[in-house]
Amino acid sequence: MKILRTIYAEDLEDIAIGGAILGTGGGGDPYVGKLMAQEAIRKHGPVKLVDVEELADDALVVPVCMMGAPTVMTEKLPQGDELINAFRQLEQLLGRKIDAVLCGEAGGVNSTTPFVVAAAGGLPLVDGDGMGRAYPELQMVTFTMHGVSATPMVLCDDKGNSLVLETVSNAWTERLARAATVEMGGSALLAFYPMSGEVAKRAVVRGTLSLCANLGRTLRETRSINADPVSAITKMLGASIIFNGRVKDIDRRTVGGFARGSARFDGLEEWRGHTFKLDFQNEFLMAERDGEIICTTPDLITLLEAESGNPVTADALRYGLRLVALAFPCNPQWQTQEGIALVGPRYFGYNTDYMPYPF
Amino acid sequence: MKILRTIYAEDLEDIAIGGAILGTGGGGDPYVGKLMAQEAIRKHGPVKLVDVEELADDALVVPVCMMGAPTVMTEKLPQGDELINAFRQLEQLLGRKIDAVLCGEAGGVNSTTPFVVAAAGGLPLVDGDGMGRAYPELQMVTFTMHGVSATPMVLCDDKGNSLVLETVSNAWTERLARAATVEMGGSALLAFYPMSGEVAKRAVVRGTLSLCANLGRTLRETRSINADPVSAITKMLGASIIFNGRVKDIDRRTVGGFARGSARFDGLEEWRGHTFKLDFQNEFLMAERDGEIICTTPDLITLLEAESGNPVTADALRYGLRLVALAFPCNPQWQTQEGIALVGPRYFGYNTDYMPYPF
Repeated sequence: MKILRTIYAEDLEDIAIGGAILGTGGGGDPYVGKLMAQEAIRKHGPVKLVDVEELADDALVVPVCMMGAPTVMTEKLPQGDELINAFRQLEQLLGRKIDAVLCGEAGGVNSTTPFVVAAAGGLPLVDGDGMGRAYPELQMVTFTMHGVSATPMVLCDDKGNSLVLETVSNAWTERLARAATVEMGGSALLAFYPMSGEVAKRAVVRGTLSLCANLGRTLRETRSINADPVSAITKMLGASIIFNGRVKDIDRRTVGGFARGSARFDGLEEWRGHTFKLDFQNEFLMAERDGEIICTTPDLITLLEAESGNPVTADALRYGLRLVALAFPCNPQWQTQEGIALVGPRYFGYNTDYMPYPF
Repeated sequence: MKILRTIYAEDLEDIAIGGAILGTGGGGDPYVGKLMAQEAIRKHGPVKLVDVEELADDALVVPVCMMGAPTVMTEKLPQGDELINAFRQLEQLLGRKIDAVLCGEAGGVNSTTPFVVAAAGGLPLVDGDGMGRAYPELQMVTFTMHGVSATPMVLCDDKGNSLVLETVSNAWTERLARAATVEMGGSALLAFYPMSGEVAKRAVVRGTLSLCANLGRTLRETRSINADPVSAITKMLGASIIFNGRVKDIDRRTVGGFARGSARFDGLEEWRGHTFKLDFQNEFLMAERDGEIICTTPDLITLLEAESGNPVTADALRYGLRLVALAFPCNPQWQTQEGIALVGPRYFGYNTDYMPYPF
């Protein structure tokens, strides 16, 4: 198997930062996943990142994830062991050795959690994920569009409780896993969507972990030479700057296991006199400028600190922060009819159709 | 194996009525369980009731149950198949044939649901249960006091979803199963507390299904000769009549998957001028007469229609109904320190110690 690159503990810094950029405000605090992954790599050795094409068609591939409201995940630091437990329990249930680990979402905490399991199991990690970003609900993966069932799924908590789910649809997996996660205190670790190498080749959004690493490195390097990190990231993502301003108001609440709310901004520089509003359910889902919708899910909306270029999550939004908002196109799989049904604006309750950015 | 008695579809009428009496106002509508059990017996043949002493010490015994708010169970009639699914899934998980079926609670719907599985599997059903009554939460069984784990447990819904739970305590089983049941629409079917014949002999409250059958028969027979059914039932249970009156006020709500509330009564005949109040969380938990506590859980409080002697559930309480309230002693296992910790008044939030009725 050809190795794309070997990931050491120190490489996780860049990946976590890149994961926060693709996390579009959600996906959990990458710091949490980074600590778990670094500890696992220090203990078990580095992780081999491989292209999905390297998998045998009959290989068994399993994504792992952390589930919950980002607000809670940060306060309730999980142990990597629980994720390894979930993975091993699923392996036992399937009665077959799992050949490779997959990333469920490349944004936020889950850009790094799969490294824990790959390191502990000495397994290759596929360079890609099921979203090319982060999303709040677990049926929201390209795997669903390729007919992969989220179950059998194993869900573990930090206390030693575990659940095996078998459901009639991935939407039902989400409902039942969410209810259990809330009861478990707001976060849980899971192994799910077992699939063959052949299906993974069709379904996976490719290269997202490398993209995370490159985004993190770019941010670090441009800062070290006093160049403009926001421009560098914008260019690398093929993104557009859709606003530049200060946070003036945040409305935030944890509802049904999700962090929901919206943030309002006043414009600066070329956007002086203009207003901007971002809605989120864990992730940023909808951007309005001067009262008009300018970008919606599934396209990506992300916030960077104007000076440092550091990504800012919905959780970290504070009054007065000076931020730049970027919009960039989603993976084409999300632009299909099935994709829009799963993650388009109407699914999230917005009375508007998806129009690819820029309109 | 010595058979105590063979139960045919028509025998379920008496058992369901008796189950409603031991149900102490909760445990679900026995009518629902009766229909499921009668259908299973008509399809698969009668059920052999056996004494727990007939089990081999190394026999594998499994209780089955329906879980949920009684209000919902009645509106959302389950299929017997889901209960059989749960049982068979647990059997497969344990990797061993289950030798006998056990009744989790002898009150309400669950006095008859085990007949479904016993009939379909051609398995003996133990004459006994884990409560000698009904209780709202699934850790509230004598099995818990004998160190039996509720898990591995299988929980199925009417849509085809299933969960396997492994938990660190029976209280955690309750929390996670309750959250899933609420999400599943308010009711679910389960197989749990797998145990050996040896443990069952120590833990089971014996003879409760026969008691149910005898209570139902007594009610039917005394009515047929125009004798007083309330007196006959009172005598059979060794109970005391603690009130006789009319319902004047009911406060009822479904909270967290439970039917909670209280009912107030005005006295009639020898209780004229007196008042009576009953609190319930699915089951009647606390009786007050003229503002003084006179009987609490774990002792049993049940309501009978004054004329017919028919048991009345908390759900069926209506303004103006004329009822007789009975109190009778619980199984001695509940009077131990562990028993009181599991189901005593303080567990349910009452600031009072248990005093066995009559004080």
